[in-house]
Amino acid sequence: MNYTVIRNLVGKILGLVGLLMFIPLLTAFFYKENIRNIISYLIPMGLLMVIGGVLGYVKPAKDKKIGAREGFIIVSMSWLLMSLFGCLPFLISGYVTDFFTAFFEIVSGFTTTGASALTGDELNNMLVNGGHSLLMWRSFSHWIGGMGILVFILAIIMESKDGSALYILKAESPGPQVGKIASKMKISSRILYFIYIVLTILEMLSLFICHIFDENMTFFDAVILSFGTAGTGGFATTVASCSIYAPCSQYVIATFMLLFGINFSIYFWLLVRNYKDIIRNEELRLYIFVVLLAIAIITLQIYKLYSSFEEGFRHAYFQVASIISTTGFTTTDYWNGAQGRWPALSLGIIIVLMLCGACAGSTAGGVKQSRILILGKYSRVKIRSMISPRKVEVVRLDGKPISNDVMTSTVAFFLLYFVVLVACALLISIWNPAMDAIEGGPLTMLTASLSCISNIGPGLGAVGPTGGFSDFSWFSKLVLSFEMIAGRLELFPLLILFSRATWRKSV
Amino acid sequence: MNYTVIRNLVGKILGLVGLLMFIPLLTAFFYKENIRNIISYLIPMGLLMVIGGVLGYVKPAKDKKIGAREGFIIVSMSWLLMSLFGCLPFLISGYVTDFFTAFFEIVSGFTTTGASALTGDELNNMLVNGGHSLLMWRSFSHWIGGMGILVFILAIIMESKDGSALYILKAESPGPQVGKIASKMKISSRILYFIYIVLTILEMLSLFICHIFDENMTFFDAVILSFGTAGTGGFATTVASCSIYAPCSQYVIATFMLLFGINFSIYFWLLVRNYKDIIRNEELRLYIFVVLLAIAIITLQIYKLYSSFEEGFRHAYFQVASIISTTGFTTTDYWNGAQGRWPALSLGIIIVLMLCGACAGSTAGGVKQSRILILGKYSRVKIRSMISPRKVEVVRLDGKPISNDVMTSTVAFFLLYFVVLVACALLISIWNPAMDAIEGGPLTMLTASLSCISNIGPGLGAVGPTGGFSDFSWFSKLVLSFEMIAGRLELFPLLILFSRATWRKSV
Repeated sequence: MNYTVIRNLVGKILGLVGLLMFIPLLTAFFYKENIRNIISYLIPMGLLMVIGGVLGYVKPAKDKKIGAREGFIIVSMSWLLMSLFGCLPFLISGYVTDFFTAFFEIVSGFTTTGASALTGDELNNMLVNGGHSLLMWRSFSHWIGGMGILVFILAIIMESKDGSALYILKAESPGPQVGKIASKMKISSRILYFIYIVLTILEMLSLFICHIFDENMTFFDAVILSFGTAGTGGFATTVASCSIYAPCSQYVIATFMLLFGINFSIYFWLLVRNYKDIIRNEELRLYIFVVLLAIAIITLQIYKLYSSFEEGFRHAYFQVASIISTTGFTTTDYWNGAQGRWPALSLGIIIVLMLCGACAGSTAGGVKQSRILILGKYSRVKIRSMISPRKVEVVRLDGKPISNDVMTSTVAFFLLYFVVLVACALLISIWNPAMDAIEGGPLTMLTASLSCISNIGPGLGAVGPTGGFSDFSWFSKLVLSFEMIAGRLELFPLLILFSRATWRKSV
Repeated sequence: MNYTVIRNLVGKILGLVGLLMFIPLLTAFFYKENIRNIISYLIPMGLLMVIGGVLGYVKPAKDKKIGAREGFIIVSMSWLLMSLFGCLPFLISGYVTDFFTAFFEIVSGFTTTGASALTGDELNNMLVNGGHSLLMWRSFSHWIGGMGILVFILAIIMESKDGSALYILKAESPGPQVGKIASKMKISSRILYFIYIVLTILEMLSLFICHIFDENMTFFDAVILSFGTAGTGGFATTVASCSIYAPCSQYVIATFMLLFGINFSIYFWLLVRNYKDIIRNEELRLYIFVVLLAIAIITLQIYKLYSSFEEGFRHAYFQVASIISTTGFTTTDYWNGAQGRWPALSLGIIIVLMLCGACAGSTAGGVKQSRILILGKYSRVKIRSMISPRKVEVVRLDGKPISNDVMTSTVAFFLLYFVVLVACALLISIWNPAMDAIEGGPLTMLTASLSCISNIGPGLGAVGPTGGFSDFSWFSKLVLSFEMIAGRLELFPLLILFSRATWRKSV
């Protein structure tokens, strides 16, 4: 095991997180917040920079390469540690008093889940009583976590000639295969961040324009919502999420949610005018098909519940975009709203979309459309081979054959996804004294677990759009926090951390 | 394609189903039921024997072998046709007026699901107004479907020297691998039926003894319940299921449910004193472990809801045995009972057990413990290979390496199980005018679908222990009927029927 490189990189990441806290610190100055808020950033910033400096001071041993093990360990350690330090501002500022709530909140931020363990009063307290910087930190963490902090490190520092950086990108990037855009990882990472930043700024500008028609869309809201959309996170400024904005803003946000759910390679190909690869991309086609189908069915089922067909369509469009991109903003409460509960089929589609997620190589969570494609083709080939056992068929994606390794990894991923989903649903069912028997029923537990592993935010039942995770016990919050990280890192890095084989001296 | 052998065997099966209707016919005579009931058996018996005779009259072409395709087609065609004819007694006798309800009911019987689409009044009408024979037919269909009607045909007629009968046994028997007990299929089938009959008679005798302490346990009830337990079906004589019986009867039934969930090879090994194979059987160990763990956790969670610890333990024991063996009898309503709803964890465990099912080679449904073992080991090996990519590990079950073919089949099976489960849950969500928004919610749809694919019976929500499937629309009943057959035949036979490749001339 190459311990020096682990120490070095984890140190750099912690230092970087410290630096990134300048954003909420500046926000605190901008909104002239009290001295306690300022200190609540200065303390963790100091700690992070000192610890990061000490760890990062060690030069990585050049004779040892970074392998899959090191990649997984660096990524999972970094994510655990940055969450631990990242929750300090909430606690030190006093807006949140419970450690597990603060930890859940920042994990929900970094993992781009957007599920909040804060009560409506706590959240409102931040907005009204000078806590804008904390709301900013919460939403900025979405933006950091969306593209991945290690990808950022790769983009600015690492010079890797032996391709070892690929293991880190593999461990942090979502999807079954890592498509290298450029031949060098460093350049790939820079292109990814360039696209990410441009899209984020585009959304901010669009929302500024919406401000003309929508007085609720303030400058602050536009920034918060853009960070939330870009990382496919979902933290808004109030419990009402996006229901307070005018239709034009809702359409803009929904469209950008869908855009951030697309594989970023597509945008790169657009830039270099490689239209052939875009048209050939099977995942994109499936994604568009699923989105259109879901919107059509849900619109037909719900439009009668709302005052106009347009309103019904808008809510269907927004909710589908929000759930499939695993963002989690909402404009209507499909579970307990005044318009009445959505029909069973629409809710069923919402649950299925929660599992599916959007495209690999985007900032979205979930199983990912490309994995669903692979698993579907795998099953089809297997059925055919049962009919004619002598024929051997190869599974292809975008015209290229899929390697056996990617295939078995995809299958194992889906199995583990299912196991973690169910295991966490059972674990959080054990003890929640603040929930009654109906609120804390199996549907709540299942969708809460699904929502966290897919990094979405809302679920059904007590964790529905206007509900939240505040009534869960500290134990359940801890389980869900780990589940969110496991989901964001696509299971293997965190699972491998708990495997004995990882820590064996040999190999 | 060997059409003659398909016609021949399907014909024989239909004829046999006609013969088996003698049992309810004799019951009708015994209880001196009216002439309409008698006719309601004579008409389908006549039809089945004539059609069966005509089809079976063709001699199978000896030069063509039976392959996997033929095996699958024979099994799925037989099951569809015998369900179509099997529902006629309900309709002709007039106790059931709706075709889809009658079809659902007999499919639920043959597939050993035990989910009833009859209302409480309809069921009570049979018991009170001279319909004992129909209750008998319903429960006897469990017994026929439990071990499999084609296995029965194999046991009495087929002389197959080239092993082609194996494909039929493969298509109808539950589990990832077919363990041949004896070298000849015919003898294997006979041994299986011998064990099946002996265990059924043992349960009947035990329940007769219970009659001494339990006046509700009549002769009729004992027979009905034994058929229901043996096939792991779950049809009882009233909506109250097993809650009306004394504790001793409940303990007996629960124990036999667990026994019928064990791989029948274990009993054969017991008979031939091959204890080594029993001890080495990993599936049996997992089954016992899961059962004990589930009973322990649920007992601890629910005993306070009941008047005594014994009562809590008994309900936990009975429900766990009933769900894991996919029988579906109940002694308490865990969803809407007077004692209050079971806690979320207990209900979550019930849902997980619904998916798992019992052992392969038993009469139970579900995914099966051995598949779960295989999938678990597969994932573990995959995680290890990510840490040390150069090591190649072999997955073993009971000490023997698992072939790649069994492995991929198991994975494909699990994927398809999941897809069919979710697809049917969505399909039955489309249109059910008789259900309100809360009753017909996602939890009801999901557990109804799960209950049908795993051939259990009850679910949660509107299909909970004292609920039922009567409020579903005809469309939903049809979808669920197909799902039950798909679940009973372990997906592939029915799915292959709808694949173009099956009907292609070549190969």
